[in-house]
Amino acid sequence: MRQIKIAVLGLGTVGQGVARLLRDNQATLAAKAGCEIALGRALEKFLTKKLDVELAAGALTNRWEEIRQDPEIAVVVETIGGVEPARTYVLQALQAGKSVVTANKDLLAACGQELFQAARAAGRDLYFEASVGAAIPIIGPLRQCLVASRLTEVMGIVNGTTNYILTRMEEEGLPFGEILSEARDLGFTEADPAADLEGHDAARKIAILATLAFHSQVAFADVYAEGIEKITGEDIRLARSLGYKIKLLAICRADGESIEARVHPALLPLEHPLARVGGTYNAIFARGPELGETMFYGVGTGQMPSAQAILSDVATVARNILQGCQGRLNSVAGRILPIKAMAEVETRFFLRLSLEDKPGALSQVAEILGKRGVSVARVIQSGLGAGQAEVVLVTHKTLEGRMRQATAEIGELPVTKKVAALFRVEE
Amino acid sequence: MRQIKIAVLGLGTVGQGVARLLRDNQATLAAKAGCEIALGRALEKFLTKKLDVELAAGALTNRWEEIRQDPEIAVVVETIGGVEPARTYVLQALQAGKSVVTANKDLLAACGQELFQAARAAGRDLYFEASVGAAIPIIGPLRQCLVASRLTEVMGIVNGTTNYILTRMEEEGLPFGEILSEARDLGFTEADPAADLEGHDAARKIAILATLAFHSQVAFADVYAEGIEKITGEDIRLARSLGYKIKLLAICRADGESIEARVHPALLPLEHPLARVGGTYNAIFARGPELGETMFYGVGTGQMPSAQAILSDVATVARNILQGCQGRLNSVAGRILPIKAMAEVETRFFLRLSLEDKPGALSQVAEILGKRGVSVARVIQSGLGAGQAEVVLVTHKTLEGRMRQATAEIGELPVTKKVAALFRVEE
Repeated sequence: MRQIKIAVLGLGTVGQGVARLLRDNQATLAAKAGCEIALGRALEKFLTKKLDVELAAGALTNRWEEIRQDPEIAVVVETIGGVEPARTYVLQALQAGKSVVTANKDLLAACGQELFQAARAAGRDLYFEASVGAAIPIIGPLRQCLVASRLTEVMGIVNGTTNYILTRMEEEGLPFGEILSEARDLGFTEADPAADLEGHDAARKIAILATLAFHSQVAFADVYAEGIEKITGEDIRLARSLGYKIKLLAICRADGESIEARVHPALLPLEHPLARVGGTYNAIFARGPELGETMFYGVGTGQMPSAQAILSDVATVARNILQGCQGRLNSVAGRILPIKAMAEVETRFFLRLSLEDKPGALSQVAEILGKRGVSVARVIQSGLGAGQAEVVLVTHKTLEGRMRQATAEIGELPVTKKVAALFRVEE
Repeated sequence: MRQIKIAVLGLGTVGQGVARLLRDNQATLAAKAGCEIALGRALEKFLTKKLDVELAAGALTNRWEEIRQDPEIAVVVETIGGVEPARTYVLQALQAGKSVVTANKDLLAACGQELFQAARAAGRDLYFEASVGAAIPIIGPLRQCLVASRLTEVMGIVNGTTNYILTRMEEEGLPFGEILSEARDLGFTEADPAADLEGHDAARKIAILATLAFHSQVAFADVYAEGIEKITGEDIRLARSLGYKIKLLAICRADGESIEARVHPALLPLEHPLARVGGTYNAIFARGPELGETMFYGVGTGQMPSAQAILSDVATVARNILQGCQGRLNSVAGRILPIKAMAEVETRFFLRLSLEDKPGALSQVAEILGKRGVSVARVIQSGLGAGQAEVVLVTHKTLEGRMRQATAEIGELPVTKKVAALFRVEE
């Protein structure tokens, strides 16, 4: 049986997971891939790092050049993370005739097109199943199994940290800050959780998914992102009473002419399949005229979920090497559709206001909405005492630009004490 | 741009769907596949059949030989259904050097190994994404994206008709027969719904999934199948009061030494992701040490869901043709693990009994269970009046053989009026 040698770049949690799973699952993987897959080299900056897995003598190096120039290494697994030096290594690996498997969403969302072009030019593979929804096969389905479906929408809960926080806020009524600091203490969050909390992690993932779903280039910079920090327990409670959950959604839509790509908190009807995705679980939901509604659900991150996705990609690349067809799947994004400005995006809205409890206050709000062409589906008003009324409005579909303008004008009304919340409502 | 010609065998609903989607989605599909895909020929027994889609002049034939001998046809799409003549056509197509895409679960579950071997021998592709969960990509993920995962269990709701019936029984409290005849009138069911109701359709699908998940040959004949006809409204109500739904589950498990493959009604905890899959929707749930729990959800059947799965497969085959690597994915089942006898399968049970309302009746039941080593987790007893008591027991995990024996003995007790129901409980 032929042997194919791989190199793992970066022996962090995921890189070590790849080495361990390869060791523990060698025989079965060989039977499925049709060849033995061996860990030939591993790149790690700190050669004295304590590892959970034993490497063959001489496998470990801190010099990328050694791996780049090693003719026996056919596949490079990149688990360094971040843009540089990962980008340089991946490009050089492809130029050196090696195929690449990466879990690196930052890199793909920032420089995807450069990497795909380099892979095409080199006639080598670039696989990245682990970059989105580790235990959820979604890259493969979008690149192959659903390729004949005219997808109109892909929407997901693709960040476990924020979903965990929102789930606990909802179930236990705890405030955001308390859950975050507890999660930090337990090591659930990244050292710097800003990329999670501000929606940037989810934005990177939806850029990758949009690129595949619509066969058009979408980068991180194209994605509008808003985080979860503005969500209060009161918003969650009110949304629930109206039949909604609040989730951090990553959404992309295509109408054939342009693409929407955005990440933000949104109200989602309780009966929507994504509304039931709790805790650290992720899920990705796709719509299209042929599919109807399809959903993929599972663990979105972690050592072994990522390692199995990476090694499954490695097995696919190994098969391509055996068959002499590396680069067979390199038509990732054949066009560049324009990205729709947020002002042109059409959704429903949830608007929460504190008004002075005076006759006519609500009608002034309604007048502005009407003037801006925003039609209201539901209103809940409750007196808060002390001359103050809490009003929640849910609109019909409207252009975001109109709603923003109306909300700004409502904010300037003398009867408005506070625009307490403005969230989009998805369906 | 190179053109690849396909032939569709059988212009039923799905076959015509393939022709229509190919017509409507030609440009995008070509961009993604890297070549134009054209419908060269179509086989249909009745040449005068009224079609929803226009075919090119001369494309339609009722003679398989014409297609078999047509050197321009590179891919055969089989949508005839059933075992023969589909089996012969598929084998002959492969021998003639054509790759095959099929939606035919009956054929794959009956003769899968013969077909896989023929494809390997011919060096051609055999793809079948549409055979299970039409709009749910599950074959591709099991063959590629999850190949490095050591799966221990795949469990699914893979038959829409039975799930629809059970959902309505639960939600509306209607009896089985009434929903079935209504569904029949509405054309929701097959002309002969026996394959659905008796679990045979689901058994075919789980045979295919088990073969891929465990890389071991599992055929329809290996799968134990029980249908939904024994389920009463009373069972559904009692299960619900204990925190369960009743679903028709298709289950396969592997422990490295043997495989379980079975289809039967089962109680599933309300919080299990599959418990929420209602109506005609399907879902497939997978477990493994690396994955944790992953679920795929969507429409399981229908013209366009099937057509998009078939054409996605065709695009993959087209790419393989362009790259000269047909047959690259043909290691489907490398071994034959033994199938575990049902008596050796370990699950929990739900047992519903009518007993004479006499002191000591329940203790006689408990004594038999204890003697057979079956441990009871919960008991609910209610008097029905007229000297009769209704008892529901939920056991801990036990061997099915023990439970069957105990139940037979309980059935023969003088105090037992009726063994009203015995269902497995999954988790």
